[in-house]
Amino acid sequence: MSQHTTTNGELEFKGYAMHDASKWTDLKLTSFRPKTFKPEDVEIAITHCGVCGSDVHTLSQGWGESKLPLVAGHEIVGHVTRIGDKVTEFKVGQRVGVGAQIASCMQCRACQEDFENYCPDEIETYNGQYDDGVVTQGGYSTAIRAHERFVFPIPDEIESVHAASMLCAGLTVYSPLKTYGCGPGKKVGIIGIGGLGHFAVLWAKAMGAEVYAFSLEPEKYDDIKQMGADHVIDVREKDFAKPFAQMLDLIISTADVVNGKLPINDYLSTLWVHGTFITVGLPDSNNPLPSLHPMQAFAGNGCLLGGSHVGSKKECLEMLELARTKNVRPWIETLPMREAGKALMNVKTNKARYRYILTQDIN
Amino acid sequence: MSQHTTTNGELEFKGYAMHDASKWTDLKLTSFRPKTFKPEDVEIAITHCGVCGSDVHTLSQGWGESKLPLVAGHEIVGHVTRIGDKVTEFKVGQRVGVGAQIASCMQCRACQEDFENYCPDEIETYNGQYDDGVVTQGGYSTAIRAHERFVFPIPDEIESVHAASMLCAGLTVYSPLKTYGCGPGKKVGIIGIGGLGHFAVLWAKAMGAEVYAFSLEPEKYDDIKQMGADHVIDVREKDFAKPFAQMLDLIISTADVVNGKLPINDYLSTLWVHGTFITVGLPDSNNPLPSLHPMQAFAGNGCLLGGSHVGSKKECLEMLELARTKNVRPWIETLPMREAGKALMNVKTNKARYRYILTQDIN
Repeated sequence: MSQHTTTNGELEFKGYAMHDASKWTDLKLTSFRPKTFKPEDVEIAITHCGVCGSDVHTLSQGWGESKLPLVAGHEIVGHVTRIGDKVTEFKVGQRVGVGAQIASCMQCRACQEDFENYCPDEIETYNGQYDDGVVTQGGYSTAIRAHERFVFPIPDEIESVHAASMLCAGLTVYSPLKTYGCGPGKKVGIIGIGGLGHFAVLWAKAMGAEVYAFSLEPEKYDDIKQMGADHVIDVREKDFAKPFAQMLDLIISTADVVNGKLPINDYLSTLWVHGTFITVGLPDSNNPLPSLHPMQAFAGNGCLLGGSHVGSKKECLEMLELARTKNVRPWIETLPMREAGKALMNVKTNKARYRYILTQDIN
Repeated sequence: MSQHTTTNGELEFKGYAMHDASKWTDLKLTSFRPKTFKPEDVEIAITHCGVCGSDVHTLSQGWGESKLPLVAGHEIVGHVTRIGDKVTEFKVGQRVGVGAQIASCMQCRACQEDFENYCPDEIETYNGQYDDGVVTQGGYSTAIRAHERFVFPIPDEIESVHAASMLCAGLTVYSPLKTYGCGPGKKVGIIGIGGLGHFAVLWAKAMGAEVYAFSLEPEKYDDIKQMGADHVIDVREKDFAKPFAQMLDLIISTADVVNGKLPINDYLSTLWVHGTFITVGLPDSNNPLPSLHPMQAFAGNGCLLGGSHVGSKKECLEMLELARTKNVRPWIETLPMREAGKALMNVKTNKARYRYILTQDIN
């Protein structure tokens, strides 16, 4: 019997929950009702959970009012403790993970064509709700249940502490890199080298691209070079974009605090003809992109601006295979799960280098 | 000796020019200095010129202060009267056209890879300036000179009056339709059925796509169906976009008067995963796109928003071949060139059905 089981041998579901949104880093150990267990479901005892910018946006109410009490965390790794009768892909004891999405309709075109991350009825791993009313609770906790489609097998070669943050941060940047052709012969810009951005640099190099890292944090420049960036551009400099006019094939922007200040026209001007700028950062609701005029934004190179939302299971498996074969590992710091509040505040104030991974400590 | 030659047999360059930007539809017949004739140049006696929304934006100073006096017009058809020693593609007497671009550097990557419409040193057909100081003057005039790269041969099967507006309006929408895969099995939306939009409907049908026309002008709906649109959607209706969620592969927006009112998030929601919204409309400078937040704009389908700038010669030749083989002809009205001011005002007030073509009348 593990530490997280009740006296009758069942997993006990409890986690570090926010109870009062005005004290969003003050999390209290709280029991919660898990998803109703179904034949396609996998139950996972959590060992690790990454701390994502989404956790900060959600808990601090930046994306709107959240449910309460709420356990955040959607970069989850653990081992399978139970499988439903219809589960085909997993067995008890296997090391697996769960990312930012916990369910989808399975019926729509998006679900049928391996774009389940764009299913209109998708359910987020926490702060979502199942049809039967159960609120989804995240990975700062003992355990989670998920339909097997939303469970990822972790390759033996990748330690849990390294796999965790791949499942949201990693996948969120891998998906657009793959979709828009990152690879040998391509020049790829990455804006903002934090949790997501550092993954983007690592993946883009592993995929064979030439990487241009745009950063306004000189204290990170040595790290960024060590991650493999071919060029580090100080965006605090006036006219920083001019030397790169019409040069890049793809830009991934991880900026999620925009405040009207993202010099988006400058970045767009660095794109080659029909090049693509993908923002994976999702700022607070009151923080839209700077106003754009098609003349300045698009007419000079016929470029494109778009977004992306996490990634599909298919892409996640590809990404894990890339990490395995190319030995890609994130730069992380670990903390015991009870220090989630500290990790959240450090993410908020941009102190993470480059991702916090919480390790299980609930008795 | 034609009507437009001087006593010594040379073409006389004169056109209907704006002299006072406060009276931008009051054009006076005025002589101007043509481009210095070079060995690669073609000289053209103009027979027809279309009236473009760009002419309105430029003359009414919506895109900023213009040069004066200024002859507008960049949908030009005529016949060759003179060729330079190095011209290889044209001969005297041939029927040819000129579009919105009159020159480029010929050296940069864009010029070398058939994207000369994105050359950073491109020169517009009017309101531009050559290195030697000569200001470019457009096609509401007797004649024009251009480097042969910016001259298009007109197929025998296409009348001049039909070819003229293809060279800007037609090309501007053909280029993104081609670039983003318009063809059989694709669902293509067209926003705004005016000069550009009606071409977009015609081309998209000729290319084999299923066409969804979005319009707020019910008086045009019968026309739009006759042009071949499979669906005409009244965008004045609340929730007009809902039935088309995640359905379209590509949208071409010709809206060039935005006033913060373009329901862009609704349109983006109609795109299939990684679908593309291209705005070819270039509003006045003080009229940017509505403010966008990545969450509402892009996260639901990972879509893209971008622009396009006219098209390349390669694309223009393809487009003319499409028009020839599929017998595509624009819906036009003709006016004598001296009525350019009336045509401009009718374009401004959205009375064109669907393009004005000016016919030569200068003695």
